[in-house]
Amino acid sequence: MNDLVLTENEALMEHPIVRQVVTQLRALDSYGTYDTWPDYKVLDPMILTKERRREIPVVGDPDEIVISRLKAYYNSIAAGIERECELMAVPFVNLSHEGFGKALILVGRLVAVNKTLRDVHRFGFDSLPDMVADMEKIVGQAVDLIKAHREVAEL
Amino acid sequence: MNDLVLTENEALMEHPIVRQVVTQLRALDSYGTYDTWPDYKVLDPMILTKERRREIPVVGDPDEIVISRLKAYYNSIAAGIERECELMAVPFVNLSHEGFGKALILVGRLVAVNKTLRDVHRFGFDSLPDMVADMEKIVGQAVDLIKAHREVAEL
Repeated sequence: MNDLVLTENEALMEHPIVRQVVTQLRALDSYGTYDTWPDYKVLDPMILTKERRREIPVVGDPDEIVISRLKAYYNSIAAGIERECELMAVPFVNLSHEGFGKALILVGRLVAVNKTLRDVHRFGFDSLPDMVADMEKIVGQAVDLIKAHREVAEL
Repeated sequence: MNDLVLTENEALMEHPIVRQVVTQLRALDSYGTYDTWPDYKVLDPMILTKERRREIPVVGDPDEIVISRLKAYYNSIAAGIERECELMAVPFVNLSHEGFGKALILVGRLVAVNKTLRDVHRFGFDSLPDMVADMEKIVGQAVDLIKAHREVAEL
């Protein structure tokens, strides 16, 4: 894991949703490990190339760090939803010890996001563009749902 | 805690929601402690009389047993909602270590129940009628919400 995948001049580093992920990762870094790291190094473990994935066992318990990445990801999606619909979006991540569970984002009385989690110890994305595309898709679907049921989202 | 509050001939023991709580408590009893206990003894710790409450510290971490009581309670409310509206109701209990958190019951894309939890280590009811009244109130409010937004509950 010493070789970084991302570089200093990553094109998507200034994308708002990527900025948000970096902010969330830094917020969840309770030991201050990232304090002296540049953004691209903080973000780097979110990217699981084929080589990196191969090094992770198929079955395993998610550790604290991978759980904080998962939370940073859903917190950022919630922030993206808030920005677009101007309603509070509350993320919940419910995990069992084996890395299975649910990620929810609630807006008022509406379940704007409802994702089944599995193999959380292997959480990550093939590339940064993949991560951005994934997040934008989830935000977009949530915003559409909120538009269709605005009265429930405002409860 | 050796003196039981409930007795063998408790009037409400045959109430459907009380039957459900007993079933759920037995289902969550992973060590088989309750196998030889009568129903009223299984249910008894749900009742916190003033005397019992006085023996519990004001600040404390909830242990496994009190969390399983809390889960049995919300599972039973979810079962009550299912019975009335014939849609699947999914309970989520999200707790921090300090006994604060959220209890959610989702029906489709609708958040039918959304309760803030605090002082979970002191979870319990003044009496069995109090517990039943509380549960029926939550089920009733959830069912009203589902009726008002059936299209979201059916998503």
